[in-house]
Amino acid sequence: MAPTGTIHGVLLSDTFDLKTFYKLDFEGVHEDVRLLNPDEVEDPAAIRFAVCWLPGPDAFAPYPNLEMAMSVGAGVDDLLAHDGLGEDIAICRVRDPYQAELMAGFAAHEVLHLERDFPAYAADQAKATWNPLPLRPPHALKIAVLGHGSMGAAVTRALAVLGFSVSVACRRPPATPIEGVTYCTGESAISEAASGADVLINVLPLTPETHGILARPLFDKVAPGCWLIQIGRGEHLNEADFTAALEGGQLKGASLDVFATEPLPAAHAFWSDPRIRITPHIASDTTPHIVCEQALQSARDVLAGKRPSLAVDRVQGY
Amino acid sequence: MAPTGTIHGVLLSDTFDLKTFYKLDFEGVHEDVRLLNPDEVEDPAAIRFAVCWLPGPDAFAPYPNLEMAMSVGAGVDDLLAHDGLGEDIAICRVRDPYQAELMAGFAAHEVLHLERDFPAYAADQAKATWNPLPLRPPHALKIAVLGHGSMGAAVTRALAVLGFSVSVACRRPPATPIEGVTYCTGESAISEAASGADVLINVLPLTPETHGILARPLFDKVAPGCWLIQIGRGEHLNEADFTAALEGGQLKGASLDVFATEPLPAAHAFWSDPRIRITPHIASDTTPHIVCEQALQSARDVLAGKRPSLAVDRVQGY
Repeated sequence: MAPTGTIHGVLLSDTFDLKTFYKLDFEGVHEDVRLLNPDEVEDPAAIRFAVCWLPGPDAFAPYPNLEMAMSVGAGVDDLLAHDGLGEDIAICRVRDPYQAELMAGFAAHEVLHLERDFPAYAADQAKATWNPLPLRPPHALKIAVLGHGSMGAAVTRALAVLGFSVSVACRRPPATPIEGVTYCTGESAISEAASGADVLINVLPLTPETHGILARPLFDKVAPGCWLIQIGRGEHLNEADFTAALEGGQLKGASLDVFATEPLPAAHAFWSDPRIRITPHIASDTTPHIVCEQALQSARDVLAGKRPSLAVDRVQGY
Repeated sequence: MAPTGTIHGVLLSDTFDLKTFYKLDFEGVHEDVRLLNPDEVEDPAAIRFAVCWLPGPDAFAPYPNLEMAMSVGAGVDDLLAHDGLGEDIAICRVRDPYQAELMAGFAAHEVLHLERDFPAYAADQAKATWNPLPLRPPHALKIAVLGHGSMGAAVTRALAVLGFSVSVACRRPPATPIEGVTYCTGESAISEAASGADVLINVLPLTPETHGILARPLFDKVAPGCWLIQIGRGEHLNEADFTAALEGGQLKGASLDVFATEPLPAAHAFWSDPRIRITPHIASDTTPHIVCEQALQSARDVLAGKRPSLAVDRVQGY
């Protein structure tokens, strides 16, 4: 049995060693919160909460007394949709204040990496060759940012400070627009922002309207040889249309960070395509320090008999 | 002879094909300004101005009637110091409004490239391996920016927007400081800003005081395993101390864009050092469009009998 004043939780993930990755080991540091891997659990009835990332279909079944399930990411779609979680179980998310900055950094890196042709300089260094290429002013590069939530706004701000020409597709005009940025609103906002773009950055949320939005009609709008930066959700991309756009030259290449199936299967053709830069869903994520802090906070809320302050509204979904 | 209303100039560079690189060919576009390579000049006495980049010691000798010499870069040190240019010859520079943005973009790329470990993901892609690495919040990275002229200020602004912790060494506190940025002033400004830095960015101007400033005393101040981004002047770097700091671990590596001798000789050990990222002085430069525009402007000022508005003050040097 757990000693009084201690709450026990379990780490549930089919794809991650959560304890190692997020340093979620509180033993000897915080004695009131214990987090165990499933194989370390001696008394499943003593487990009162779970910390999760893509838990398997039967992951929750062994634990009859769960009161809270928390995702280590910002999204809780998988937990909300999980059959193993009754409606009386609080679902918590992480609210990491640094996620937007991380996303902006990833987008800025990809834009600069291509615009300034760093791969060419790496190849030149290998040959001890000094070959400066002409520069063009940043404003000559037209960038479309699809989405203007906290992520899209941070991406837009960073690219504007670097001098690029940015058009943003947003639901409504921002309260404090950035000088020089073009904001497109209304029904045609997305195709308007994408029109003639040299770089297309997707940071849209996934909704029925945006599912598969990265498809031929949009690829036909951008400037020929456009570069796609896909940091929204894997389901935004129509892979067949994408491949056709690469072949047809509407797209020169792409930075893909998210995929319909993650991890991207080793046999997938994207891995070896020289036109595609692949990263394993790291454009932005919660940071270990914040995950630990908020796991402790939510567990202690449960221990104190309170509804966790980081619990989501199950109807709104966030 | 030149027809009335036309001024003839010559392109002088020992290292560059200026006409091709900057598209400085006005024939058929602007009939009042003609720019020729030395081997195209039939009547040297008709040459009234020169557009230059590192002209050789005797480059100006064939042209008795020069009235103006213009550098394609922002710096005119080499022209001011050139024995072949009499004091009555106006020396012009380029004032490119995009140079600071380009410099900020280069610095941001190098910081993000290392902090987010893109080389590791490129290696993983080659093996079709999905291996996300933990993220840390941008503010955990301490960046020192040495110099706060137009270049340093733009670098600071970009890194601050991306969330990094920035300390700047500047001559005097800025009129409009950025929230969260630490400004170090006074005699110890440089060592104060560098103290404990994870990344050290040099954008200082070259003066007798800053010559060789990137040396052991400064390398002993930074955090162990610091990354140097050298985008000032080649003469700022003490190469022997730098190599020792790499061996000793004070520095993990460096992005070097400027060198005491440019082009960097093919036999130089830096080229093949895996800890060093080499670029051929492209962190920032004037852009071809602006060079053409300002070459035309200065030539037309001479044609009109005026002192060129882009001429520098020979005593101040800028």
